[in-house]
Amino acid sequence: MAQKKKILLLTTGGTIASVPGGQGLEPRRSQVMERELEQLRTYYEITVRDVMCLDSSNIRPQEWQTIAQRIFAERPGFDGVVVSHGTDTMAYTASAVTFMLPDIDLPVVFTGSQLPLADMLSDGPDNLRTAFAMAAAGHRGVFLAFDRKVMLGCRAVKVRAAGFSAFESVNARYAAQVGSLGLTVDRRVLPRFTGQPRLCPEISQNVFLLKLTPGLNPRIFDMLAAMGCQGIVIEAFGLGGVNVLHQGLRGIRRAVEDGVCIVVTTQCLYDSANLEVYQVGTRLLELGVIQGRDMTSEAAMTKLMWALGQGMDRQAVMELFDRNLAGEVTL
Amino acid sequence: MAQKKKILLLTTGGTIASVPGGQGLEPRRSQVMERELEQLRTYYEITVRDVMCLDSSNIRPQEWQTIAQRIFAERPGFDGVVVSHGTDTMAYTASAVTFMLPDIDLPVVFTGSQLPLADMLSDGPDNLRTAFAMAAAGHRGVFLAFDRKVMLGCRAVKVRAAGFSAFESVNARYAAQVGSLGLTVDRRVLPRFTGQPRLCPEISQNVFLLKLTPGLNPRIFDMLAAMGCQGIVIEAFGLGGVNVLHQGLRGIRRAVEDGVCIVVTTQCLYDSANLEVYQVGTRLLELGVIQGRDMTSEAAMTKLMWALGQGMDRQAVMELFDRNLAGEVTL
Repeated sequence: MAQKKKILLLTTGGTIASVPGGQGLEPRRSQVMERELEQLRTYYEITVRDVMCLDSSNIRPQEWQTIAQRIFAERPGFDGVVVSHGTDTMAYTASAVTFMLPDIDLPVVFTGSQLPLADMLSDGPDNLRTAFAMAAAGHRGVFLAFDRKVMLGCRAVKVRAAGFSAFESVNARYAAQVGSLGLTVDRRVLPRFTGQPRLCPEISQNVFLLKLTPGLNPRIFDMLAAMGCQGIVIEAFGLGGVNVLHQGLRGIRRAVEDGVCIVVTTQCLYDSANLEVYQVGTRLLELGVIQGRDMTSEAAMTKLMWALGQGMDRQAVMELFDRNLAGEVTL
Repeated sequence: MAQKKKILLLTTGGTIASVPGGQGLEPRRSQVMERELEQLRTYYEITVRDVMCLDSSNIRPQEWQTIAQRIFAERPGFDGVVVSHGTDTMAYTASAVTFMLPDIDLPVVFTGSQLPLADMLSDGPDNLRTAFAMAAAGHRGVFLAFDRKVMLGCRAVKVRAAGFSAFESVNARYAAQVGSLGLTVDRRVLPRFTGQPRLCPEISQNVFLLKLTPGLNPRIFDMLAAMGCQGIVIEAFGLGGVNVLHQGLRGIRRAVEDGVCIVVTTQCLYDSANLEVYQVGTRLLELGVIQGRDMTSEAAMTKLMWALGQGMDRQAVMELFDRNLAGEVTL
């Protein structure tokens, strides 16, 4: 019999580890996961480390750093890492950790569940199995496994608040799927890493996600600048439409002149922002606004927070957004 | 031969009426639409009125009012109304007009196109045909027709920036679909209006859409209050998760105490926010936050803007959000 693959499981809390409490579900380390792991130990040699125990609504950039640091420090000797995490902000964490761990040299697979493991009908056991299979499959990169599908962490979006098919790979194919052939990996989707793995956890918290709405008060740009915003990701309309007539552009121009990095994505779930198609978009490009192209808002936010955290100036940020680091953007 | 149905077409600009200009596509009244209408006149008696000519990124609440007023004033003598509109903010306009025209007594159908009518491959002719068929079908309500599907205006979301299947009916069935049986209407979806049609165009512009991100600076709530915000729609995580530990709640409490109406929806495209499931959500309800349930962000924004514009106080707004006015929410 072949030697069992060694998998490190880092737990961070979330529904998968929640138990009923007085005020609704509370994140608490449960013994139910141990029962599930007992079964998985038939296939893998598993080491568990509890990193934190949080409802993922409360996971902040500091926690992203802790998770990235723990993965980087504790990975020696393992074939792969699984991170159990609440679903609410898992797409943000998986994107952020992607950028914090350039050229990661083993599989890192995030997963969670919509229904607690303590529930007989929980999706947790299935999700854990998919995640462990991907972690043992030997492909470098940061992934998210959910509902028998595996996607790049930087392409994941939580599209369903309640349904088990909670995550979609947006504007990118799935990296792997589970079916009657087991785990089938689509190698075209895998990132091509060639360098030495690094840990780059520094990140800026001064980035704001602005989803446009009709009639938005353009003073918001001044307010954000006054709050010390270094970066703004604008979720624009459609291909990148921004309220331009009626003062919208003036606020953006002032913010850019003040050194704020502005990235434009689309508030549509699918397809790419493309500022070159409409008259309103071309005016933004002239101002120095950066194209988010087909990145998810989660990836655009974390890439901008990470770029600013690494100390990049606006020119360097612009150049970074013209590069595909880990599959997060189609160029 | 039966008498032709009388349809009023109100044009407002948008891609469907765009022509190539020096700086990308510009909205400009085109003669190409006239050619399309010539064919449609075989089936309907059509009256065209140009209301405005704007890229829909630049359509504001004032324009929603103009559109609602024109529909209300000019509808006598017609069997239905079609409104051609840019796709970028059409879901917002269709939602807003739904609330501005309670108990509307004829079909009002918004439509547009992703590719200009001037292009041989345009989706405009198909979309116009679906919209005219729905406008002639006699069902009261505000609808949006796109890609051979008709949905309630207050359930529409633009989910694709480029693809022809640009709009989805979110958390609600389609009101009608085009297939080999022609236009098939699902009567269970249609709103049940019993009152006299009214025009209630007053609307507040002081509502902000806040999409949460991990690490969001809670000072944003003070800044929004300082900007004179009367209402905030929070796009929370998952079922309604809000960054609660680490100061997030303090800002929300202060805003509620200052009289700001806060509605919580989910940033997931599908499913309903439900603040009763998790501990973090129940704390919000205690503070007086209003549940957006399964409303789209577009519907939650326009319903709140409209409620505040009608002069409702917080208690009245809370009661309004416990009522389904036109199919916008599942209770």
